[in-house]
Amino acid sequence: MKAVVFRDVGQVSVESVEDPKILQPGDALIRVTTAAICGSDLHLYHGRIPGVLPGMIMGHEYVGIVEEVGSAVSAVRKGDRVVGAFHVACGHCRACRSGYFNQCSQGGVLGYGMAFGDLAGTQSEYARIPFADWTLRRVPDELTDEQALFSGDILSTAYGAVRNAGLRPGETAAVIGCGPVGLMAVMSALACGASRVFAVDLVKSRTDAAARFGAIPVPSGEVNPVARINEGTDGEGADVVIEAVGGIQTLALAFQLVRGGGRISAVGIASEEQFPFPLAQTLVKDITFRIGVANVHRDIDTTLALVRAGRIDPTAVITHRVSLHDAPEAYRLFDRKEAGKVVLRLS
Amino acid sequence: MKAVVFRDVGQVSVESVEDPKILQPGDALIRVTTAAICGSDLHLYHGRIPGVLPGMIMGHEYVGIVEEVGSAVSAVRKGDRVVGAFHVACGHCRACRSGYFNQCSQGGVLGYGMAFGDLAGTQSEYARIPFADWTLRRVPDELTDEQALFSGDILSTAYGAVRNAGLRPGETAAVIGCGPVGLMAVMSALACGASRVFAVDLVKSRTDAAARFGAIPVPSGEVNPVARINEGTDGEGADVVIEAVGGIQTLALAFQLVRGGGRISAVGIASEEQFPFPLAQTLVKDITFRIGVANVHRDIDTTLALVRAGRIDPTAVITHRVSLHDAPEAYRLFDRKEAGKVVLRLS
Amino acid sequence: MKAVVFRDVGQVSVESVEDPKILQPGDALIRVTTAAICGSDLHLYHGRIPGVLPGMIMGHEYVGIVEEVGSAVSAVRKGDRVVGAFHVACGHCRACRSGYFNQCSQGGVLGYGMAFGDLAGTQSEYARIPFADWTLRRVPDELTDEQALFSGDILSTAYGAVRNAGLRPGETAAVIGCGPVGLMAVMSALACGASRVFAVDLVKSRTDAAARFGAIPVPSGEVNPVARINEGTDGEGADVVIEAVGGIQTLALAFQLVRGGGRISAVGIASEEQFPFPLAQTLVKDITFRIGVANVHRDIDTTLALVRAGRIDPTAVITHRVSLHDAPEAYRLFDRKEAGKVVLRLS
Amino acid sequence: MKAVVFRDVGQVSVESVEDPKILQPGDALIRVTTAAICGSDLHLYHGRIPGVLPGMIMGHEYVGIVEEVGSAVSAVRKGDRVVGAFHVACGHCRACRSGYFNQCSQGGVLGYGMAFGDLAGTQSEYARIPFADWTLRRVPDELTDEQALFSGDILSTAYGAVRNAGLRPGETAAVIGCGPVGLMAVMSALACGASRVFAVDLVKSRTDAAARFGAIPVPSGEVNPVARINEGTDGEGADVVIEAVGGIQTLALAFQLVRGGGRISAVGIASEEQFPFPLAQTLVKDITFRIGVANVHRDIDTTLALVRAGRIDPTAVITHRVSLHDAPEAYRLFDRKEAGKVVLRLS
Repeated sequence: MKAVVFRDVGQVSVESVEDPKILQPGDALIRVTTAAICGSDLHLYHGRIPGVLPGMIMGHEYVGIVEEVGSAVSAVRKGDRVVGAFHVACGHCRACRSGYFNQCSQGGVLGYGMAFGDLAGTQSEYARIPFADWTLRRVPDELTDEQALFSGDILSTAYGAVRNAGLRPGETAAVIGCGPVGLMAVMSALACGASRVFAVDLVKSRTDAAARFGAIPVPSGEVNPVARINEGTDGEGADVVIEAVGGIQTLALAFQLVRGGGRISAVGIASEEQFPFPLAQTLVKDITFRIGVANVHRDIDTTLALVRAGRIDPTAVITHRVSLHDAPEAYRLFDRKEAGKVVLRLS
Repeated sequence: MKAVVFRDVGQVSVESVEDPKILQPGDALIRVTTAAICGSDLHLYHGRIPGVLPGMIMGHEYVGIVEEVGSAVSAVRKGDRVVGAFHVACGHCRACRSGYFNQCSQGGVLGYGMAFGDLAGTQSEYARIPFADWTLRRVPDELTDEQALFSGDILSTAYGAVRNAGLRPGETAAVIGCGPVGLMAVMSALACGASRVFAVDLVKSRTDAAARFGAIPVPSGEVNPVARINEGTDGEGADVVIEAVGGIQTLALAFQLVRGGGRISAVGIASEEQFPFPLAQTLVKDITFRIGVANVHRDIDTTLALVRAGRIDPTAVITHRVSLHDAPEAYRLFDRKEAGKVVLRLS
Repeated sequence: MKAVVFRDVGQVSVESVEDPKILQPGDALIRVTTAAICGSDLHLYHGRIPGVLPGMIMGHEYVGIVEEVGSAVSAVRKGDRVVGAFHVACGHCRACRSGYFNQCSQGGVLGYGMAFGDLAGTQSEYARIPFADWTLRRVPDELTDEQALFSGDILSTAYGAVRNAGLRPGETAAVIGCGPVGLMAVMSALACGASRVFAVDLVKSRTDAAARFGAIPVPSGEVNPVARINEGTDGEGADVVIEAVGGIQTLALAFQLVRGGGRISAVGIASEEQFPFPLAQTLVKDITFRIGVANVHRDIDTTLALVRAGRIDPTAVITHRVSLHDAPEAYRLFDRKEAGKVVLRLS
Repeated sequence: MKAVVFRDVGQVSVESVEDPKILQPGDALIRVTTAAICGSDLHLYHGRIPGVLPGMIMGHEYVGIVEEVGSAVSAVRKGDRVVGAFHVACGHCRACRSGYFNQCSQGGVLGYGMAFGDLAGTQSEYARIPFADWTLRRVPDELTDEQALFSGDILSTAYGAVRNAGLRPGETAAVIGCGPVGLMAVMSALACGASRVFAVDLVKSRTDAAARFGAIPVPSGEVNPVARINEGTDGEGADVVIEAVGGIQTLALAFQLVRGGGRISAVGIASEEQFPFPLAQTLVKDITFRIGVANVHRDIDTTLALVRAGRIDPTAVITHRVSLHDAPEAYRLFDRKEAGKVVLRLS
């Protein structure tokens, strides 16, 4: 089959590779119909994930058709159209039983290679999906591939950040960073009943995009976000803040935007190891700081239901649609930030 | 001042009565600018509330301007435009501290007379509001009286029913009964992230109204609601059911509509003392049944925030707007179900 | 192998039956070392479960040693000592994913026969356990079989009733019925931080037993339970009430014992189909009524942890220990209420 | 009256000062019968609280008898024995209504002077307590002054840290720091259903004390706490960690002790402004970090109930009992860590 494989730092290519096979009773084999390039694929692209060797298949956002299932699989069967989580989880270890599927003792990220148990990626014509009963969901007939696709990764990432923040209906939210995850956090917060969502980004075109989804734009290159959000919250600050950038400055900003008793949920992937946490300021303000990667198995049903209900439109973040053949060029555009979300059409 | 007073069974009149005065340090005196007639006013109208004697001032939905406050009041001051809860609560007894303001040891319903501590109603030019720091909220400038009015009663009743049901984003809801409270429950469920809300009523014009707010109409005179909701929920039933009628049949229906593990929240005021609860059926289905009147002090801030954000439009249920002078005729229309929600304009 | 089988109404016998085999990739085969007779076995004993035919193996409380596992099982392996839930659950259907394992679309009760998918019981030398990754747990080394045994059924039933009641630390609880489940509800409520637990039963020896576990005894043949509990709760009633009998009168009592804003959790298996639910009384009191059978997969880890920590001693309810051979006589004693909890020792 | 007043850095004296008076309708005047010296009094003692001037009355842990109440007070009356929160809260501002009494817009700490609205302390024969309906609680007859005293401060601080951590029954906890707050956190965690509580401190006599309350002692001068807690939690780490020291090293340790998906609750008052928060490590571990001072109004009822039920014995931390006259010497001992908790007996 054809697949997008890692070749060298900053270089992927479309190559013929061996077809995947069912290896475990819980596996499913799918024919990928739609895939996407994710911000976290760039970590592999730049050679920053230790176990990823040349030849590894890239990618972990995918929709496909089930071709074959292992003997223990009962949730999906041949012919089902499915969307899957970017990370696999066994469903029954102590972490999974507690709802922390992202801490699964047998888990791993598709396409992240040896570091995570030799899991191939899904930017390929076929893919093996372990723990299929847990990792896959049937796509409702009324949804297109593209509508379902992001529930397996960035939409559930964004939604999970809002859930982690403990947002309650009627509360105010600030979202820092209006890239694809930030925009989906805006949509998720509104779907969960936020009264006002302030969308903060240096780039005005991004806050404009957020405004189209119902947010109050706060282009931080033009207005002081602290002043703007205090003004819009009777001087109190936002009940919850979603940090979708991962930078030291934006994290510091989150603490300035949150009200006393508020909650900050950080989902951006930081390049720094450490952050100077404001101890004295938070002790008197009584703050909850939650940080964690997506927990897709927990949120995928909810995000699919919200998309199906028309409450969230994840396709709005797509800027490019290309064939598998054009993936290498798409990676280059995406890496130079000349493309937003890129979808690979395989069928 | 002029006020709508109870005169006899089925008879109210507009009369001159003595002006109210501050009696306690926690009281506020307000000039009422907008009031409304509530379904529960009909209990008084029909003489069903024991302590209500001829001459009692009717009504408990109100917006007004603060004229004077007692020495202990600090949350509002002269000139503030305010909306208030229909029941008063001290804020500090054990029930209030636990968030059950409707169980307040010193509480009572405005206009319900001796039975509840001689609290006059608010269909009058002026009204005394006890525990003002707790019972009143300033109306945000951008809201009209009518937009704020129902947060003090039926909107918070409906929203509270949804909160009591423990609705989570992405879940499905069924609302039985599409009168004013039912319609507001539809809006509240959607604001809280329900993916689908099925609106059930025998009267098609009522389910049509619900559909305009985003519900899936289930006119139960034309379609079987059990079949319709099973069809729309993959055969499982609704995650939550809001019963906004109070009848024996509609309560029984709620148990047929709810899925295993689901929650029923009953907010309709029943005329029957008892209901044949389906023990055997619910034991194996693992059901939560919550029943209770509104807990306005708990929900008023949230409903005001949702109205302010444009997430809920409570004015949509208003059918008549009349002067105080015309209140007796409005009561007759309302009692004969020829009027929906009636607003009294005093200013 | 030898097994206790249903022979006729009121009659079980120990017979030689065919050894069970692995049928599905998710099955485990265990050698039972300790089993017990459960109150719900009497439903089968009296022929009240439609699908149970003569020859069916009885029982669903068990501890054993894993002999063999199917190809998809990874949580347990040959040689592990395990305790299992009395009902099996797939772990991945929508009900299971929502935490309602007792509503599993593929689930069933061991020993309940055709009605629930031909699941044999566990009062036998060997047993097949479907969905082993989900249904079984390894027994910590420091626990005896008897200490672990009841986490698979009545302890998790009782604990789940307390969890369903939403008991918070410092709250007061009343437990109606002090049989084995009631006593374990007393222990569970105290382990969860109840300040006072009132144990109500007509039989004084049972309330005495509850008192030995820390409850305040309320022998309802001698004292008025409403008066006693009001006296002990500043006139308010209990924050939560656990109904562990299932009778119409005891359910009615629960509504008299609970405070305004309180929660009733019913776990007793009622013989009546319906219960006259007090609508008018509960509407003004704002009551949550939760009813449901055990959800063992959700609570088994917690109850094992509490037993391991010495916070709960489930062995205290055991009155008889017999060999498999003596099971028929034990059933007779248990049915005549001459035995409390009976344990069958197989090893 | 006589009172302990701040005189200079490191110096307090017992002086005759003017008697307090009722100033607001919500005030109560109490005759103090028992007071205590709190760790946070040392901040004043060392002159670190900007608004505290010579002559200010010290202290904020107190039990007393109500002598007089303002016209708006209804929860307590003359003659009641009461315990009060160390910080006052209005009960009705937005922060209070949300349950964040420690963020009250009109609040302040007793004895913290001009910085917080000229609130005198309570190490004095009489004291004025603002917002008495909210700040005071009647002491149950069966409790001594000393048993009730700490619910107004350090016991509710410790309990609140456990509540903030979201500890669920059956989970494991680690408490870092076994001073008075740490010991009370151990007791609180066990009262809330923790299965195992690991008590970590460099000083072995302190972990021995924790062991007497049921903790597993981890004297970190002798054993590696990471290794010890991993060994005791199947290699996973603790579900929750309570940091009761406030140091940079102990905070870093908390992140090493917590399991993936776990929660850290920091209640120690840090001397450093910032802490190097481990971003990369926590992102993949999915961690909640909660930091905040006590929220006594939220927890005081619960802690009083747990003490009354014998579930927590706060008097165990008392090492010295002295008269008001001897307070200056007690401050010296306490400052040199030669005394643990010191109680001042005024009656």
